[in-house]
Formats: sequence, structure tokens, C-alpha cells
Amino acid sequence: MSSAATHEHVGMSSSIDITRIARDIAAIAGFSEEPPATGYSRPTFSAAWAVARDYIIAEAAKTGCRHRIDAAGNVHLRPAGLAWETPAWLSGSHLDSVPTGGKYDGVVGVVVPLEVLRAHPQAPLELVLFAEEEGTTFNLGMLGSRIWAGGGATLTAADLAKLRNKHGQSPLEAGRPHGVDPSRFALDKLNAAHYRGFIEVHVEQGLAMWDQNMPVGVVTVINGRRQYACTITGKPNHAGSTEMGGRHDALAAFAEILWQLEQGALRLNAESAHTVLTVGQLFVRPNAINVIPGEVVFTIDFRAQTAKMLDVGNRMIAADIEGICHRRQLTFDLQRTEALPPVPMSSAVCRALRTAATSLGISLPDVASGALHDAAILAPLLATAMLFVASKDGISHNPAEFSRVEDIALAARILAATVTA
Amino acid sequence: MSSAATHEHVGMSSSIDITRIARDIAAIAGFSEEPPATGYSRPTFSAAWAVARDYIIAEAAKTGCRHRIDAAGNVHLRPAGLAWETPAWLSGSHLDSVPTGGKYDGVVGVVVPLEVLRAHPQAPLELVLFAEEEGTTFNLGMLGSRIWAGGGATLTAADLAKLRNKHGQSPLEAGRPHGVDPSRFALDKLNAAHYRGFIEVHVEQGLAMWDQNMPVGVVTVINGRRQYACTITGKPNHAGSTEMGGRHDALAAFAEILWQLEQGALRLNAESAHTVLTVGQLFVRPNAINVIPGEVVFTIDFRAQTAKMLDVGNRMIAADIEGICHRRQLTFDLQRTEALPPVPMSSAVCRALRTAATSLGISLPDVASGALHDAAILAPLLATAMLFVASKDGISHNPAEFSRVEDIALAARILAATVTA
Repeated sequence: MSSAATHEHVGMSSSIDITRIARDIAAIAGFSEEPPATGYSRPTFSAAWAVARDYIIAEAAKTGCRHRIDAAGNVHLRPAGLAWETPAWLSGSHLDSVPTGGKYDGVVGVVVPLEVLRAHPQAPLELVLFAEEEGTTFNLGMLGSRIWAGGGATLTAADLAKLRNKHGQSPLEAGRPHGVDPSRFALDKLNAAHYRGFIEVHVEQGLAMWDQNMPVGVVTVINGRRQYACTITGKPNHAGSTEMGGRHDALAAFAEILWQLEQGALRLNAESAHTVLTVGQLFVRPNAINVIPGEVVFTIDFRAQTAKMLDVGNRMIAADIEGICHRRQLTFDLQRTEALPPVPMSSAVCRALRTAATSLGISLPDVASGALHDAAILAPLLATAMLFVASKDGISHNPAEFSRVEDIALAARILAATVTA
Repeated sequence: MSSAATHEHVGMSSSIDITRIARDIAAIAGFSEEPPATGYSRPTFSAAWAVARDYIIAEAAKTGCRHRIDAAGNVHLRPAGLAWETPAWLSGSHLDSVPTGGKYDGVVGVVVPLEVLRAHPQAPLELVLFAEEEGTTFNLGMLGSRIWAGGGATLTAADLAKLRNKHGQSPLEAGRPHGVDPSRFALDKLNAAHYRGFIEVHVEQGLAMWDQNMPVGVVTVINGRRQYACTITGKPNHAGSTEMGGRHDALAAFAEILWQLEQGALRLNAESAHTVLTVGQLFVRPNAINVIPGEVVFTIDFRAQTAKMLDVGNRMIAADIEGICHRRQLTFDLQRTEALPPVPMSSAVCRALRTAATSLGISLPDVASGALHDAAILAPLLATAMLFVASKDGISHNPAEFSRVEDIALAARILAATVTA
């Protein structure tokens, strides 16, 4: 009797529970700066973000995990019996969101390893919550993973001091109450000897898997990304009395530039899949109905799977902006604010994931990541791979973002089988 | 001796003093919400606007004028000996500015009749300061003149209650401390029997006069204007993982629309001078570097000298937006927020101005107004004309706006000769 009971207890604890995953996702969705009708907003170091983080810490504690917060504000959770120095698998993602985003981006990569720790409380697994992945809080992405990976050398305290959130605070200021401490960046750096590898679970945020009926996939490469900030300066003037030929309209120049860049990006995308260009942010000054715009400030986000294509994009962006501004007699300032190369995933970790999936009777197709992830930051330092979960209609960064909880549970079973193999 | 002194006194009081005009312009420029380096900002009913208005009231009082504030918040000033009911010339303009605008737009039309009242303290002349001409404070132009001219019937209290300034106040709320009282709109309506005509002095805000070395001109027609508000709704999505072909990018659609509208407006302008199209205001949502824009909200301002050309523009705007949104599978909402027909000026008042100019040995060429003015609102009710002063390089709605004070003084001499004829 006592042996059967013990066996049943072990059996329950070792199985992934889909209802617990669904409950975690719903709980985190409840922590938002916005009413849920307009989407889910959790800027890093906001009150909503901190409550979501504390929920994960509390849930992990119930299954016997202790936690520590590193100098970048990332949270690490390990089974109490697993020393911080013992080589373990690392898995995790982020809880911050874009403004009015969805329920799954980042969150899935947190609740999956949490559920694996519930099912296998002694697993050699560390759950990590990275502080700021999206880049929308301070206008620079993957802050937490970059600081931890580089020990404050690649992204310095001085760099961070220049960034600002919507309240005008730098990540150093906003993060101080949440453990950010630049004096410890170098001491508290990622030590590769403490890890067997990093596996990030994430929603695909693209159409490919949903369309081809693939619930889960293994990522073999993450796109590179270049980001730019551009200011075009023309001449504000009266909208009624300034003839069409005498204008230096910064917004009309922007329109021609974006129209031309979109045509170029469509051609490059036809040559090489996942090559994409986006202008996501634009401000117009003075932004008045009857004044010709004197200045526009906008961002460009360009991604591709090869360094060569990133260079092609770089030349196209510079040439289009320069040519159009020159013809229109406008001045411009174009800055490259970020350059991240394409990142191949670890073939050994990809193989381990495929083997685990096969042992569960699950087929695990190879996919590519158009989006960037913390995995791209850790990959040069740790053997890294990603598990993708299909996104309905490819919709992401949108309240309508949706992934099936059954598919998420499948990813959890594969992660569990991998880390306990 | 005493006769000579009296003569000299009369001589001084009857001559336009350029230094007083320069001092008035400088004084009003000092009343701004912004530091002068970035331009002059006087939203209607703001503290800066009220101080500028009170300066004019005080200066007019020194020359013996009394004032009253009508139910729309417009200020009227007459020599104390001139009853409000006695038919007099009306002259004035506005003190509100666009954000970070210039020193001359509106202000010139106020300081010129003020100086005429100083030079001729008994002139049959009423100075009027219209409350909100630009339209940038509440997103609708010429509020003060429209309410006064229509007695609250053409622009009702209910219409006004829907408008908002940047502090979220309607003109009724923001204007209450400054005399706005919708219960008196009908009672306090413009009575044409009290006026001989309306003459608005204004800077040209265009290139034509400056380029052709015309210091002053008489306006024979004011362009018509249609304004539109448009929202385009696409689908916000992830900037990295959404292929170029699978996007519903509201900002890329906007770029194509503005590029096409600009080409169209250039063609129409070649057919008919002063035909102009401007997108001055644009908001992007969610406006994040790594999110494909899901929504753009923008304005269109279209002006032309004939009703026919306004209709051509109307059809072009609707067709371009509909065609591009349809092809891109986006939805849109296009509203016409204003439709003001072209307004011919009174030939009798134009003739009176030309006669006065000739008597001073000044040639007064005919010009057209691309910009709208309060004069367009009053013209259907009062015999109305405008005097334009050349604008350096046609620059307006910009801190670099400049007109020669000598040219402004010339306009004052013509106005003085006209109202004292």
C-alpha cells in the first residue's frame, strides 16, 4: 500500500499538467498596466512586471526552489538541493511585454520550465527570468541577458545611463529597487561552467508552423538584426500659403522613403526568406494639422538570416534616405543603434531536443527564428537552442496572440525529457 | 508758440510710429509657453495668451480705448467716445499661435490697428482680438470669429463641447475664465449694422510678395479649405517573425498614400496655383521599434482657389486612400472635418484700400491668400478685405518667420488713411 502510494505520487509529480500551465498563463495575463481589453502591458521594472515576477518566484518556491536576483535584475531559480555551481540546464525567457502585447510572448518560456520543475522537483534545471527582452521599455532589447552575459563590458553602466523609459528613468534608476547594481555587473557575470546548456522555449510569432500544422519545432538559426534611428529635418511652414514646389516637408520625404524601402525589402525577401524591414516608431514635429512637418524621427528594424543580406539592407537604407533627402533638400541624421549578427543554434542541444522528442513519439521539425531572443545573446557563451510553439495566424505583439496550451504542454514534455535524460 | 506746440502734438499723434510697432511685436513675443529659442507658443486661453491679450487692452487703454469681451472670448476695443452701436471700421486678427510658431502671424494684424488708434485716437475704428484662429489649440480653426459671426448657430455649444485642448479641456471649459459663455452666444452675435467693413492685416506666409519685392498687397480672394481626419487600421505584429508578404502594416500603407497624394497635389498645383495638400499630423500605434504598426491616425489639409478644384481634391483623397487600403487589406475611416469655400473679398473695401494707398504714393498690388483667416468667416456678413505684408522667404508657422517692420508700418499708414478717409 505505502509503496503503491509512493509510486502514484512519483507518477503524478513526473507528469506535465496542462491545467497548471493554463492557470499560470492566465495568472500572468492578469498582471498588466492596461485593462486586458486593450492588451497586456508589462514594462520591465513596472509594478505589473514585478508582481508577475513574484508570482513565478512563489510558484517555484512551492515546488522547493530557492531564487537569487543577479546584478542585472534577472531572477534565477534552482531546486534547493541543486547548488548554484553545479552544472545544470538553464531554461527561461522574459515576462516584460511590448505595449498592449499578447499573453504568450516570453511568458510561455517561463511557465514551461516552471512546470518542468513542478513535475521534476529535483531536475538539474535552473529557471531564469530575464529583465527586459522586448526593448520597448528603454528602446534597447535584451538588456538583462546582455548585462549578465557580458558582465557589464559589452553593455556598460554608462550605456545604460543614457537610456530612458516613458517615465524618464534609466534602467539603472528604474531597476535599482529590483536588484540592478552596476557595481556588481562584472562579479555577477554568467559563468559557463555552471551550465550544461540553455534552452529557450518561445512562441514562433510567425505563420510558418501554424500554417504547416507543426505544434512544436527546434530552431536552428536566429536572424540577425540591425536597428537604426533617423531624423529628417525640413522646414516647418504654413500649410495654406506654401506652394507645393516650395516645400521642405519632412513627413512627405519620410513617406517616399518608407514606400521605397518597402519595395526594396519585398525584393530582398523574395531572394532570402525572413528578410524583413519595419518602421515601427515615428514622431512628427510640430505635428499640427496646418503646419508642414519640419521634422520626423523614426526607427528602422531590418533582419536577415545572413550577414551578407544584413549588409545589403544597410546599403539600401542609407542610399534611399540619402538620395531622397538630397533631392528634396532636406538634412538627415541616420544612426545604427544596434547590429546583431545571425546566430546559429548549438547542433548538440538541437540533437538532444530531437532525441527527447523522438523518445516521446513527437516529430520535431527544424525551423528558423525571424525574431531575436535572449537565446541569441547566450549562444556565443553557452550551448544554446530554442523550442518553438506554433502561433495562431502568426499574430504576435498583439492582444490576439494565441498558442494552444496543448502545444505548450508538448514543449514542456520535450524539455522535461531533455533535462532529465 | 502755443499754436506751434499744439500743431506738433497733433502731428505726432497722427503719424504711425515704427518704433512703437516694433516694441509691441517684441513685447508679445515675450509672452510664450516655450523658451523663445524653440519658437513662440500661445495656445488660446493659456496663461501666455491671456497676458498678451491684457497687454493689448492696456496699450489701447493708454490711448483712450475701452474694451468689452464677447461671449466667444473675443476682445473688442473702441475709442471711449465711439459708441458700440456707431458704424465703424473693424480691424484685428489673433494672438494665438501654432506650437513653436513665429512672431508675426496674427500679431501684425493686432498691432497695426492698435498703432492706428494711437495715431488717431478718435478714429472710427474697432480693434478686435479673435480667440483661437490657428486651430491647433482645439483642432478646429477660427473658433472666435465663427462663434461671433454665427451667434452659436453654425458652430454650436454642443460642437464645442466635443473639442479638446492638450489638457483635455473643451473651449467652453478652458474659455470660461476668459469670458466664453454659450448662454450668450445668440445675444452677443455680430451685428453688421455696427460696422462699415472689416480689414484684416496679416503676413502673407507665402513666397510671392517677398520674391517680387512687394512690401504690401491687397487680397482679392481667400483659398477654400477642406480638412480630413483618417484612421487606417491594420494588424500589429512582430517586426522580426512576420514575413513581408504577410503584413497589414498601417504605416507602410500611409506612406504609399502620402507619396501618391503628394504626386497628385503637384499635378493639381501646376493646373491651378495655390492648390496645396498637407499631412501635418500623424500618430502611430503602438509606435514601438519592433512592432508592425497596427493603426495610424492622420489629418489631411487641402486648399484651392475654386470650388471645382476642392471637389477634384476630395475625389483624389478618397480614391487614393480607398484603393491603397483595399489592395493592402486594411480598413479605414475617412471623415471630412471641415469644408470652407473659397471667399472673394469685397471689391468696395479693396478699392478703398487702393485709393488710400495711392494717396500715400504707395502701389498696392492684388494678391491671393493661400492661408485661411478670420476674414473668410466675416466676409459673408461684412464688407471685408485684407492687407498682406511680405513674409521673408515665405516662412511661417516657424520661429524663423520674419516681416520687415517698415513694411508693417506701411500697412498701418494705409489702414490709417482708409479708416480716416
